[in-house]
Amino acid sequence: MSADARTIDLNADMGESFGAWTMGDDAALLDVVSSANVACGFHAGDPLVLARTCGAAAERGVTIGAHVAYRDLAGFGRTFVDVEPARLEAEVLYQLAAIDGVARAHGTSVGYVKPHGALYNAIVHHEAQAEAVVRAVERFNAAARQPLAILGLPGGVVLDLAESRGIRAVREAFADRAYTAEGTLVPRREPGAVLHDPALVAERMLSLVTTGEVEAIDGSRVRVDAESICVHGDSPGAVDMAVRVKESLTGAGAAIAAFV
Amino acid sequence: MSADARTIDLNADMGESFGAWTMGDDAALLDVVSSANVACGFHAGDPLVLARTCGAAAERGVTIGAHVAYRDLAGFGRTFVDVEPARLEAEVLYQLAAIDGVARAHGTSVGYVKPHGALYNAIVHHEAQAEAVVRAVERFNAAARQPLAILGLPGGVVLDLAESRGIRAVREAFADRAYTAEGTLVPRREPGAVLHDPALVAERMLSLVTTGEVEAIDGSRVRVDAESICVHGDSPGAVDMAVRVKESLTGAGAAIAAFV
Amino acid sequence: MSADARTIDLNADMGESFGAWTMGDDAALLDVVSSANVACGFHAGDPLVLARTCGAAAERGVTIGAHVAYRDLAGFGRTFVDVEPARLEAEVLYQLAAIDGVARAHGTSVGYVKPHGALYNAIVHHEAQAEAVVRAVERFNAAARQPLAILGLPGGVVLDLAESRGIRAVREAFADRAYTAEGTLVPRREPGAVLHDPALVAERMLSLVTTGEVEAIDGSRVRVDAESICVHGDSPGAVDMAVRVKESLTGAGAAIAAFV
Amino acid sequence: MSADARTIDLNADMGESFGAWTMGDDAALLDVVSSANVACGFHAGDPLVLARTCGAAAERGVTIGAHVAYRDLAGFGRTFVDVEPARLEAEVLYQLAAIDGVARAHGTSVGYVKPHGALYNAIVHHEAQAEAVVRAVERFNAAARQPLAILGLPGGVVLDLAESRGIRAVREAFADRAYTAEGTLVPRREPGAVLHDPALVAERMLSLVTTGEVEAIDGSRVRVDAESICVHGDSPGAVDMAVRVKESLTGAGAAIAAFV
Repeated sequence: MSADARTIDLNADMGESFGAWTMGDDAALLDVVSSANVACGFHAGDPLVLARTCGAAAERGVTIGAHVAYRDLAGFGRTFVDVEPARLEAEVLYQLAAIDGVARAHGTSVGYVKPHGALYNAIVHHEAQAEAVVRAVERFNAAARQPLAILGLPGGVVLDLAESRGIRAVREAFADRAYTAEGTLVPRREPGAVLHDPALVAERMLSLVTTGEVEAIDGSRVRVDAESICVHGDSPGAVDMAVRVKESLTGAGAAIAAFV
Repeated sequence: MSADARTIDLNADMGESFGAWTMGDDAALLDVVSSANVACGFHAGDPLVLARTCGAAAERGVTIGAHVAYRDLAGFGRTFVDVEPARLEAEVLYQLAAIDGVARAHGTSVGYVKPHGALYNAIVHHEAQAEAVVRAVERFNAAARQPLAILGLPGGVVLDLAESRGIRAVREAFADRAYTAEGTLVPRREPGAVLHDPALVAERMLSLVTTGEVEAIDGSRVRVDAESICVHGDSPGAVDMAVRVKESLTGAGAAIAAFV
Repeated sequence: MSADARTIDLNADMGESFGAWTMGDDAALLDVVSSANVACGFHAGDPLVLARTCGAAAERGVTIGAHVAYRDLAGFGRTFVDVEPARLEAEVLYQLAAIDGVARAHGTSVGYVKPHGALYNAIVHHEAQAEAVVRAVERFNAAARQPLAILGLPGGVVLDLAESRGIRAVREAFADRAYTAEGTLVPRREPGAVLHDPALVAERMLSLVTTGEVEAIDGSRVRVDAESICVHGDSPGAVDMAVRVKESLTGAGAAIAAFV
Repeated sequence: MSADARTIDLNADMGESFGAWTMGDDAALLDVVSSANVACGFHAGDPLVLARTCGAAAERGVTIGAHVAYRDLAGFGRTFVDVEPARLEAEVLYQLAAIDGVARAHGTSVGYVKPHGALYNAIVHHEAQAEAVVRAVERFNAAARQPLAILGLPGGVVLDLAESRGIRAVREAFADRAYTAEGTLVPRREPGAVLHDPALVAERMLSLVTTGEVEAIDGSRVRVDAESICVHGDSPGAVDMAVRVKESLTGAGAAIAAFV
């Protein structure tokens, strides 16, 4: 890799502790990623956790993303909620406002939005909820000092809608997931959907960054269009895998940098 | 009243509905007051209520105050919570950020902070919690396009502390409360503490604005230092009283205007 | 009406206040109905409201039903939540346990379960959630001094499932709703779906109780199989309508009595 | 130890996970203790966690205690809340009802109440809150198949009050805490207040069980009146310490058994 050296973003969820409960190894992850999807208090992340996470991200120069979610602490935002669009729009706007203000009070600001969990999945196809999320971002951007991008799954309704409204849409790949020959994620319930070998994952992500392709589950090569790679930090093995992905990429000359 | 015509602010709580539950007659109050203490979601005011209240205040040109509170939906923020200062600071900052961002998305912004309920009362004397609230405002102001003032009870710890840190402290009087000869509120549990006669209340507030004094419960005259008068809207009688106060003041040539 | 005099239950939702927010006129409704669907704390009804509602129902001899719901204060239980069955089962069991214990401490007990809002509607067709609700009732009944019945919409999955497990299923009619010629409710979004004339509603319910039939929206007569009639109390007009229904029935010799 | 062989209870907190967040090693602790203080959903312990914890305790024959708390998920029940007694009574009753009903559905029942965290500490001296807790237990017991005991700190208001009302009061000692010469706990902020050496702790608890005394922080011997010893399980070291205490006691011939 030389002339074709690319820049890629690494993103991971963090700030998902709540009160007395801790989750993830944020300190370790902040040394790996260029973008942090920070919980905004609706699925995780009480205000103290949020403030500390924003402060830590600011110190390391990691870009903050608003990890907005359904109002669902008990289900950690992983449960689909058929909330009315007007209410969803207001809930997303509230979360964007809260995290951006807290980030600014810590000397930084929010660069993008990545919907979390069930909301992330819903707005790939649920048009009314996708529209609600996009409207919230539009409203926020109209008054913001810098407009937010939306980070999401390639091919979904929400990113198309965002772009049609002049919002930057950023596509991501998942480091530890298998892809179909069509370039979509192999559903979690199918065998082989989740990859556990750090070396293999690192090699695949290097392929993605250098060639734009990965090997699909059927052995074919498939193009995956991504400006960011999502890694995890919710277990020691997950952090180790994230480190391996980063080392593989930087070792080959790629630069890890936030897209915003 | 002529040469001595004064300007005074009228403030009231609003945006205290939540989900299917409604409270107060915000539409009527917004026609009366110059400043609206808007719930931020912790004691009342879900994101949709907050957005609509900010929008309505913006339309009428009413200044928005952040009615920050303890995290206490079940107790409506009226219950003292001995929350650790670091957590309280983060909770107040979160609320300030949320409401200011929502207000900006509706073409306005927040002008001041008025702590709500038990928090309002606690920081009159509770130094660690007063310090936490002031720190949250300081942090917010350092990054804000315009600094917030703090609206509170004359003589309390929090306003002294705010002024010592360069935050504008605004004192308020309560239209429907009796005062001691020392200028403090007669405690609610004592007879005569709460006034119910709109005509009397209107006359007292006119006296306050034109002379700086009201009649104390012992019949003496007492000085009450206030840039704002707090009125209520949680019952038809309350709104009527607020209207009477306003008419009395404007009829005598005083101007009703926000302090921010 | 004489030899054919029938007995029918009247049920209504109550105990839906929460903290500082009030809803409905429970005192008036308790004088009308024979069964009270009492909120259990998940969509409404904090513990103090629940205790007082159980106490008031006990005083009037009104049977208590557990108005179990999704965990959704912000949406008042009116939002579908795609909660996993195991979690839903546990949430329903928890609510049944809470209200029954509180009722027992007030000298009464719970007689039936009526799922609330979006959960009520979901389990008419959502098999996994219907199964979860039925399992919760089964578990509760296995340990209970008296088994709970389930009150619901005729023709739904949940009542069929309940009966197949030996749980008593009780069908209800809605006083203020129009019926199709097939005996199902006219969807709310269609014109004429909700009836507003108390006299008409009272006459229809008398027809239901004496003949087992009502006039469908197309003018035909349709059989509606119901042991209970649901009335409302969330507005003065609603309470008046409930009173009219009751007077019409008792005036014709029908007895109003709980089915449990 | 032979003729003087005593029976003692070991209790520990459990069921304190919530949704996606886990806390403690309940499986390990259930093999050590005779009594489990199970969270009831107000500070921790969602309904699914509660059901599973009750089921696991039933399987191992461990007695279940209701670990009732302030409504405070964000503060894990460790924050004092100045809740009005009527509301506190209702909240405690609700929690007792919920956990007992869930326990019964899993083939067991609740044997005692141990208030959690800040509530535990408050009712050592706060008379109105102690009275509220006792009233809730009284109300519950009046309708219960078996009356609950209250487990608490020796010398506190709540246990005296409980006994004066005919409720069994059970006193506990803390395995890892130092005692003053007066038999009270050395406050946590003082040096030496918390003991970390498992061998020392095990030896002290053996002394407590066989002689009724432990060495106070000033070197004197002090009588500690306890029917139960509180151990912890929130870290691997804590579980190890609990195991050591149990082995020490059973090795010396003492029997570990629930007091209920």
